[in-house]
Amino acid sequence: MKTLAIADVVHKIGQEVELYGWVNIKRDHKKIVFLDIRDRSGIVQVVGGEECKALSIEDVVKIKGLVKKRPDKLVNDKIPTGSVEIEVKELTILSKAQPMPLPVTTDGYEIDEEIRMKYRYLDIRRPRITKNLVLRSKFIQLLREYLFEKGFLEVETPILSETTPEGARDFVVPSRLQKGKFYALPQSPQQYKQLLMVAGLEKYFQIARCFRDEDPRADRAYGEFTQLDMEMSFVEREDVMRLVEDMIIGVYQKLNVPIKQKPFPVYNYQDAIKQFGADKFDLRSDEDKKNNVQAFAWVINFPFFEKTETGGWTFTHNPFSAPLPEFKQDLLDKKNIGSILTSQYDLVCNGYEVGGGSIRGHEPAVLKTVFEIMGYAEKDIQHQFGHMLEAFSYGAPPHGGIAPGIDRLLTCITGEKTLREVIPFPMTSGGKTSVMSAPSTVPDDKLQELGIKVNTD
Amino acid sequence: MKTLAIADVVHKIGQEVELYGWVNIKRDHKKIVFLDIRDRSGIVQVVGGEECKALSIEDVVKIKGLVKKRPDKLVNDKIPTGSVEIEVKELTILSKAQPMPLPVTTDGYEIDEEIRMKYRYLDIRRPRITKNLVLRSKFIQLLREYLFEKGFLEVETPILSETTPEGARDFVVPSRLQKGKFYALPQSPQQYKQLLMVAGLEKYFQIARCFRDEDPRADRAYGEFTQLDMEMSFVEREDVMRLVEDMIIGVYQKLNVPIKQKPFPVYNYQDAIKQFGADKFDLRSDEDKKNNVQAFAWVINFPFFEKTETGGWTFTHNPFSAPLPEFKQDLLDKKNIGSILTSQYDLVCNGYEVGGGSIRGHEPAVLKTVFEIMGYAEKDIQHQFGHMLEAFSYGAPPHGGIAPGIDRLLTCITGEKTLREVIPFPMTSGGKTSVMSAPSTVPDDKLQELGIKVNTD
Repeated sequence: MKTLAIADVVHKIGQEVELYGWVNIKRDHKKIVFLDIRDRSGIVQVVGGEECKALSIEDVVKIKGLVKKRPDKLVNDKIPTGSVEIEVKELTILSKAQPMPLPVTTDGYEIDEEIRMKYRYLDIRRPRITKNLVLRSKFIQLLREYLFEKGFLEVETPILSETTPEGARDFVVPSRLQKGKFYALPQSPQQYKQLLMVAGLEKYFQIARCFRDEDPRADRAYGEFTQLDMEMSFVEREDVMRLVEDMIIGVYQKLNVPIKQKPFPVYNYQDAIKQFGADKFDLRSDEDKKNNVQAFAWVINFPFFEKTETGGWTFTHNPFSAPLPEFKQDLLDKKNIGSILTSQYDLVCNGYEVGGGSIRGHEPAVLKTVFEIMGYAEKDIQHQFGHMLEAFSYGAPPHGGIAPGIDRLLTCITGEKTLREVIPFPMTSGGKTSVMSAPSTVPDDKLQELGIKVNTD
Repeated sequence: MKTLAIADVVHKIGQEVELYGWVNIKRDHKKIVFLDIRDRSGIVQVVGGEECKALSIEDVVKIKGLVKKRPDKLVNDKIPTGSVEIEVKELTILSKAQPMPLPVTTDGYEIDEEIRMKYRYLDIRRPRITKNLVLRSKFIQLLREYLFEKGFLEVETPILSETTPEGARDFVVPSRLQKGKFYALPQSPQQYKQLLMVAGLEKYFQIARCFRDEDPRADRAYGEFTQLDMEMSFVEREDVMRLVEDMIIGVYQKLNVPIKQKPFPVYNYQDAIKQFGADKFDLRSDEDKKNNVQAFAWVINFPFFEKTETGGWTFTHNPFSAPLPEFKQDLLDKKNIGSILTSQYDLVCNGYEVGGGSIRGHEPAVLKTVFEIMGYAEKDIQHQFGHMLEAFSYGAPPHGGIAPGIDRLLTCITGEKTLREVIPFPMTSGGKTSVMSAPSTVPDDKLQELGIKVNTD
């Protein structure tokens, strides 16, 4: 078993060590061969002889060797292990590597994305992507630690769920046990997290996988994405905003990521529109952009409803939201609909919306009236949302939540251009999976078992 | 915002506090009304008057009240807050509750499961289920903390993935962008985690959602389940077994869950079959069962292949496994196939298989030969596993892993009879979701957009 990370060889001067890693670089100087050996933790220079001649780039090796301090003038300041080198005592090739189909030591921006995704398992080897994935793991765990400290529970909600009539397009899954019927993959755990509040769990979070079959766009990931899904009982708008802000400030401090302004500035929707022409905006200066500063802001006081093309009303953000308290009576009376403001809060960072949430309408009458304003017939409300209305009738606490996007926050932190740089195995923008060639055809007999057939007319 | 958990009122004697919770019990004694108020943390007795008359069971209330020490003879030893009671100063009903469709204060075993799942958000209120979900959250976080401490990275792998020709039935998802083609939900992240080893991440884990469309059975959850998916590079069989064992012993100790025998006993597959007639077995005495003791054991040295009904060979556990080193040459030579032993290790607890894994065949020739022995034609191997064979040709480290089942481990720890008692929103055994009525029908125009139609002939 490997027990020593390459980054730790600097603490082993004068000792014989066992290294495991990949041949990052090989320089053959006739009698002497210089190798850079790489593992997840870093790179170290190895000096060998004849036994290293047969090595190729990216071979996997086990090396027994002596850690030697380099003379001062040969210290390499560019790598953390640059003060030492390893003298090979014994070398074993654990796995041979064919020539790479793409370079793995460059930053990779120059390589065609289709190729990068096809060979994502090699693409991850490049230090930039390894670093992004290490950061992702750490970032998520810091968020969790903050929330556990605050008394949150992590709860898993179903992936095989019900279709939602609202929002983006669902991915559906045919049911074999009930032919002709379908599950849907959740666009978010919205209803489940509210049900967990009705269940009395009070503080919930989940690193939740969400699914939307939206048309590909440069600035989003096709198919699935990850959000920090949260919900709390017995809170008001400012409580949720304060907690999320405190969490972000604490976690970013631990990651040494600078934040432009604390507390985060808060904009009224109307003011944001006037000032920036949009409800998401970039508060960074050029200097900030260079220094990877994160410029957060809140946007609040959005209108609850907007006119549809056909002259009806639809929600601007989330039909499960409560109006601001001073508009509750107007909502219940269906008066001044265009003027009703929602309790929605959007979190903006570096020009992107990185999260949104609201205090929910926990009274059945509020939720029901929202759908009535949108023109739903009684029977459709009951059919689609009857289970939520019923749930709220058994003692639903006031509650609210938010769902910051993990992929988007990490894209901002790393300064990457696309979400795909911080997702382990992203789909291509055309909806093709990394490495594997999904989607793919399914044999007719399997489809028949599922009660469907292909219909591409 | 609620700031005080009910369990903490015992520290507030003589102080005025604000409580938020549910009316668990109401006893109306004419001038005095006794209430038990419940939140996630526990229950406390509240004493009020006229203002409490209108309350119903499970109403959500906010109470301002004075925490008073009870006289010694009135202390209730049965609840942790039994030494105090709250004198109501002000009571606000935040949400009214209709009569409950099922009791939420009993242990719930007596209630029909369909009803419990329909009202899962009420079912979770019963202390037994709340406690199971709190334990689940804590258990998973303790596992994570152990693994982070050991240098593991948490990495998310795709849910929309490729169909697998092996193992159980896939759930499939029609692709709208490529009509007539399908994604599949992963039965496990097996291939992705191995690709992460090829990518050089060395130590991976994920609390992974897995999907299998298997016929319902009493002792499994239909549809989806959760496993602690792990993979490590530069390890041998004993390294993985030792790490997992150390993790379980440490985490169970923190949860005060007793383990029968440490280190875990190790059985040869053949010996287990002889001794117990099966490769999973229960080592507990009746006394152990009473005390909720967890009896773990390892089973190793399984045959790699077994005969199929048609006289060919198939794998017993996992085609991606390596044989034990001493059988590698036989495998490559396709000799003595029935005698080849695999590096597979199964973890058994209280009569259940709670996890299995192996050292993988990281050499392309080994993986390919496994499929040849199973009678795959060259073109099928390339079509289905070509991407793995290719990945292994670019410097794949020796690696292995395991995937303990979270739902099953928790069922054993809690002594529950079914997995559904420890899953937040389980499906019924017939594949119907909790609360929501999925699977459900999808309008024809949506199906057309997805390139499929229903075919229930």
